[in-house]
Amino acid sequence: MPLRNSFAICLFSAAAGLASGAGGAPLPLDVMPAPAEVRLTGSTPAPGKLVVSVAGASDPRLDAAISRAEDRWQSRVSAGGYQAPYRLVIERGDAAGPIPTGSEDESYTLEVGAAGATLRAPTSLGALHGLETLLQLPRLEQSGWSLPLATISDRPRFPWRGLMIDVARHWQPMEVIERNLDAMAVVKLNVMHLHLTDDQGFRIESLTHPELAGKGSDGKYFTQAQMRALIAYAALRGIRVVPEFDVPGHATSWVVSHPELASMPGPYSIERQWGVFNPVLDPTQEATYALLGDFLSEMAALFPDRFIHVGGDENNGVQWNANPAIQAFIRDHGLKDNAGLHAYFNKRLYAILAKGGKRLVGWDEILNPLLPRDCVIDSWRGPGALATAAGLGFDGILANGFYIDLCFPASDHYLPDPLPPTAGLSAAEQAHVLGGEATMWAEWVTPENIDSRIWPRTAAVAERLWSPASVRDVPEMYRRLAIVGARLGEAGSLHDRNADLMLRHLVGANLGAPGVASLRTLVSLVEPVKHYDRGGLQVWSNQLVPLVGLADAAKPESEPARQFAAAVDRMLFAAGGIDRAQAASLEGSLGRWGAAGSEVAEHMADTYPALREAVAPAKGLALACSVGGDALRALAQGTPLGKGQLAEEMELLAPAAEPNPSATLIPLVAPVRLLLAAAAAQGERASLSDEQWRSWVVSTAPPPAR
Amino acid sequence: MPLRNSFAICLFSAAAGLASGAGGAPLPLDVMPAPAEVRLTGSTPAPGKLVVSVAGASDPRLDAAISRAEDRWQSRVSAGGYQAPYRLVIERGDAAGPIPTGSEDESYTLEVGAAGATLRAPTSLGALHGLETLLQLPRLEQSGWSLPLATISDRPRFPWRGLMIDVARHWQPMEVIERNLDAMAVVKLNVMHLHLTDDQGFRIESLTHPELAGKGSDGKYFTQAQMRALIAYAALRGIRVVPEFDVPGHATSWVVSHPELASMPGPYSIERQWGVFNPVLDPTQEATYALLGDFLSEMAALFPDRFIHVGGDENNGVQWNANPAIQAFIRDHGLKDNAGLHAYFNKRLYAILAKGGKRLVGWDEILNPLLPRDCVIDSWRGPGALATAAGLGFDGILANGFYIDLCFPASDHYLPDPLPPTAGLSAAEQAHVLGGEATMWAEWVTPENIDSRIWPRTAAVAERLWSPASVRDVPEMYRRLAIVGARLGEAGSLHDRNADLMLRHLVGANLGAPGVASLRTLVSLVEPVKHYDRGGLQVWSNQLVPLVGLADAAKPESEPARQFAAAVDRMLFAAGGIDRAQAASLEGSLGRWGAAGSEVAEHMADTYPALREAVAPAKGLALACSVGGDALRALAQGTPLGKGQLAEEMELLAPAAEPNPSATLIPLVAPVRLLLAAAAAQGERASLSDEQWRSWVVSTAPPPAR
Repeated sequence: MPLRNSFAICLFSAAAGLASGAGGAPLPLDVMPAPAEVRLTGSTPAPGKLVVSVAGASDPRLDAAISRAEDRWQSRVSAGGYQAPYRLVIERGDAAGPIPTGSEDESYTLEVGAAGATLRAPTSLGALHGLETLLQLPRLEQSGWSLPLATISDRPRFPWRGLMIDVARHWQPMEVIERNLDAMAVVKLNVMHLHLTDDQGFRIESLTHPELAGKGSDGKYFTQAQMRALIAYAALRGIRVVPEFDVPGHATSWVVSHPELASMPGPYSIERQWGVFNPVLDPTQEATYALLGDFLSEMAALFPDRFIHVGGDENNGVQWNANPAIQAFIRDHGLKDNAGLHAYFNKRLYAILAKGGKRLVGWDEILNPLLPRDCVIDSWRGPGALATAAGLGFDGILANGFYIDLCFPASDHYLPDPLPPTAGLSAAEQAHVLGGEATMWAEWVTPENIDSRIWPRTAAVAERLWSPASVRDVPEMYRRLAIVGARLGEAGSLHDRNADLMLRHLVGANLGAPGVASLRTLVSLVEPVKHYDRGGLQVWSNQLVPLVGLADAAKPESEPARQFAAAVDRMLFAAGGIDRAQAASLEGSLGRWGAAGSEVAEHMADTYPALREAVAPAKGLALACSVGGDALRALAQGTPLGKGQLAEEMELLAPAAEPNPSATLIPLVAPVRLLLAAAAAQGERASLSDEQWRSWVVSTAPPPAR
Repeated sequence: MPLRNSFAICLFSAAAGLASGAGGAPLPLDVMPAPAEVRLTGSTPAPGKLVVSVAGASDPRLDAAISRAEDRWQSRVSAGGYQAPYRLVIERGDAAGPIPTGSEDESYTLEVGAAGATLRAPTSLGALHGLETLLQLPRLEQSGWSLPLATISDRPRFPWRGLMIDVARHWQPMEVIERNLDAMAVVKLNVMHLHLTDDQGFRIESLTHPELAGKGSDGKYFTQAQMRALIAYAALRGIRVVPEFDVPGHATSWVVSHPELASMPGPYSIERQWGVFNPVLDPTQEATYALLGDFLSEMAALFPDRFIHVGGDENNGVQWNANPAIQAFIRDHGLKDNAGLHAYFNKRLYAILAKGGKRLVGWDEILNPLLPRDCVIDSWRGPGALATAAGLGFDGILANGFYIDLCFPASDHYLPDPLPPTAGLSAAEQAHVLGGEATMWAEWVTPENIDSRIWPRTAAVAERLWSPASVRDVPEMYRRLAIVGARLGEAGSLHDRNADLMLRHLVGANLGAPGVASLRTLVSLVEPVKHYDRGGLQVWSNQLVPLVGLADAAKPESEPARQFAAAVDRMLFAAGGIDRAQAASLEGSLGRWGAAGSEVAEHMADTYPALREAVAPAKGLALACSVGGDALRALAQGTPLGKGQLAEEMELLAPAAEPNPSATLIPLVAPVRLLLAAAAAQGERASLSDEQWRSWVVSTAPPPAR
């Protein structure tokens, strides 16, 4: 197990006078996740094609990574004319086994000089990580591409750095998983957790029980040959594949073909809705364990990873409570209650998995002192639950805080920590916290937009899990996130590239038609509603209804709106008072955006029926821009808004903050409220400390309901 | 072998009064390739999710295609609210073998009604084609999506409808081939020809001779496991994989590991330049046939297709002429000349392949009456060569005219016909012409932009090879090409989606930076130079130099420039004389484009070194727009340009037509020249017939040098 102590980022300039990252200045590197230790020595104009050689024995995994890296390096050099190649020598220790296990030494050191670079790593996995760091080093500056010269010594904080993809609720085929594996490797994530079964689908072929996927999947599942290919694809990128088979709850797709194993009589059909449902396996029948024994033993042979996830979450107890035989079983076996029965069930699973040489992983609900201590807790509840588990001696990983399906901003996922300083764990207990994983639940994603839900925000999670705990500067994270976003695209992610495809769902093939530029602006300035709110706004949606609306085209975090909010924050709370030229420039942006909103609201919905639902948010955008413009003019002129005016403008703005049937929201509402509050209060600015001024403005402008 | 008679498109309206395609009106279908027979019966607002059932036995290939079709159908329905599913029933005859052979019946009939559709096909391959047709039927109209109701009876004109990808010159990995197979299936292409070896790379693993790819490929080759996976991937889409191993010429990568088999002493290294090179296998040594025997027998087992392509092109004769032993061999064996020696070599290959049950395919140069008649000619020379071969009794396919790497407009590839009416072949001779293939030679493409070179233009080739010979309306082809382009993107092609990635090579990650919108406009209005001109303009380029310049970002055919040229043509040659409002509108476009050109030329190259080469074409664009604006104003005002003015403006325009170091050209120059000529001649319009007027204008405005 690699060391997991915290290393302070150590950035100093030996030669070139570069600023330290610790003082708030941008890190002089664009690399994400930030390396543990960096010593900068200068920079050089970017050299030509990358040519890599390996000192020592060959390793097909490293050879393949080198070939991909050489190709991707091409975007770091300029067009026109031949340039001398840039040579990298890799010195690698042990190759490590072809299938990663999570216990390899993943560290590396990278010496980047003007003439060439040297990468040293004890294993191939470390060498893969070092290659990704090198690929992220070149920067585009005013004068062209440049390569920072540096000595980098790097290693992960946690050994389990995961991304879970739910392929059950909306089916995600091979290519989706493959391109996300490519993107994971860029940011040094090393565990692909596949949520393979749930109420809405059974997505893996069983040879002993073909009826499971046969009847439980609409024909949409991975064959075993495909899964073997995926595991090999992941292994080539240093990534483990951990499968999840969710039992005893979330089990509707199991009992479609085996109604006799449900806790209440069937028949059952594949669930099409979203939520927590009643069908649960019957843990009192030996036939249940016969099926699970066949199936899990087969899966233990198919998946080389030591860990198998058996879910265990959200059994609502309805079927167990309603079945007298099950309640009698609890009494007869002294199991106390449903939780005791769940523990009994898990002990039976544990025995099956142990025979296959596997360790059992489950969600929080499996935590029970009766379970053997080599079970692992995957916590959707939070670091507190993880600390409790560690106290009991269980290993754990953190999913809470990393629920990227909820469409919160990257910053919300960046700061949660599997081992917060407040956890108060001993060193031995800390060692039980293996890491964490971003979870891509799939109620509201298709293969067309899933990448835009995962990337680039998951790079922020990757930094949390790889980099030292002290790396927590949010603006600096956003600066690098924009850059790594483009690089994830080069590696294969379609999070940006599928934007037009989603637009076409709204307006058809002709993206040059009048008004489409305005629609594009609207799409870029709205966000899907957060948390689980969409289900309440679009109650008619289910697994069979296409996801082709405005909320599906919008990104979880609007980048122009985020940048506008950041600019407003800087302007309002700058030490020197408000810069009026800045206010005028922000007003210009709002003017353009508002005009786009008006055009969509007034002219587009008649032509494009799919845009009827976009009228309300388009009007809301126009409103927010108009009110924001009023506030900016008042600030630029130094004329405070009266109290009545403030109330009037806030009232005018209110519809922009209301839920609308497209299930999108307008993130500009929050900075516009700040602008209004500041415009009203500007007469008091001189009499207040900076701190008091900020607090006054922020408290006058409540954040919009999420 | 399916029927290959010509069927006239038969479009008539039983109920809805739709116009016939024959009269020049747009076909009331967006399907490409156009089906053989269509009877339209009306249309219905597009229904909900597609749900497919199969009458009769299951077939994994059809099941997989149905699953993909159901997902892709989602883009044909509107957002918001639940809609009743649209049900398709497939009635299939024989499943046909799991690996397509090229001799199956690929026909189908499709009855599309308001309540549901029925697809009948004698084989699974026909059913796959019918599914693709159904996916292309829904149209986006003012009132929303609608589904044309029709009875379609369709079958291919030719059984061999191919796309060749050269993976030797620039390596193209698995994912490139896979997404192009996805796109081929959309337009009913059925042969993927992989050009696996050439001077610049040996791209297939041999187990009997691992040194071939080992030393000849920089580690960039398909393993046999990967190739098996590709063949399976293709077969699921009804596509054959025909491998090419190019011998005896284009063989440098063979003799890197086997210098003893070259016709002159080595050593040799992988060729990095483009062109025709000297290294050729020595056909007089038995060791050559021992190696080819091992290798080709191994390949015959790996590739299930009955055809193996052995190249045979462009042996420049230098090595054979210089080697006295080889010339003595020719004399001693009575072979007459090098051509006779090539025929001897091919007969030896024929014997090796026949043992493996394979038919030999080669380029024009293999054609020799001494060869057995079951060899196949792949013609880069043209339909005349193909007719000659057919007259001798050889089967043939046409590549000439379909060289998509040369960056000509889609119309240039649309009209060449493997069986032109002028060929004068008997029915029996016509049956020897199996079809054709688009060829993607890879001197100037990388995995990043190869899709944009192949698609959407190859859809025009696909229509030539599938649809009746009478389908030749160029504007109607372009109308549908824009729509099928979007659908190819939905299926996986990155021809549009990689545009931003190519822009980033020029300006880095921040595509929101000032001026980038103008650069985007420039990129959309230039084209790579045509034919083989690029090599002369960028002599320093070779396999190791990245392709990240303006020419690489530009598309082979500028769609806005094409539309501008079409609008100019309509305006100048309209029956009613010149529409002045139209002239003003065209002037508006030129004004915006010219401003973009000026901004790039004047302000961008200082910031972005990669744009230095873009200054000349950016200035050229600004020039063409300015001169075009002058001409349009003269036309709008009805004031003819004087003879001196015409010469002056033509002179002013000249630099825009000159070659520049970015290896791009400005397609607007041609319509601007037409505008100038018309502006000068407009005083004569009234005295000329329509025909004379067109001829006058066109002859005054020479097309720019290509």
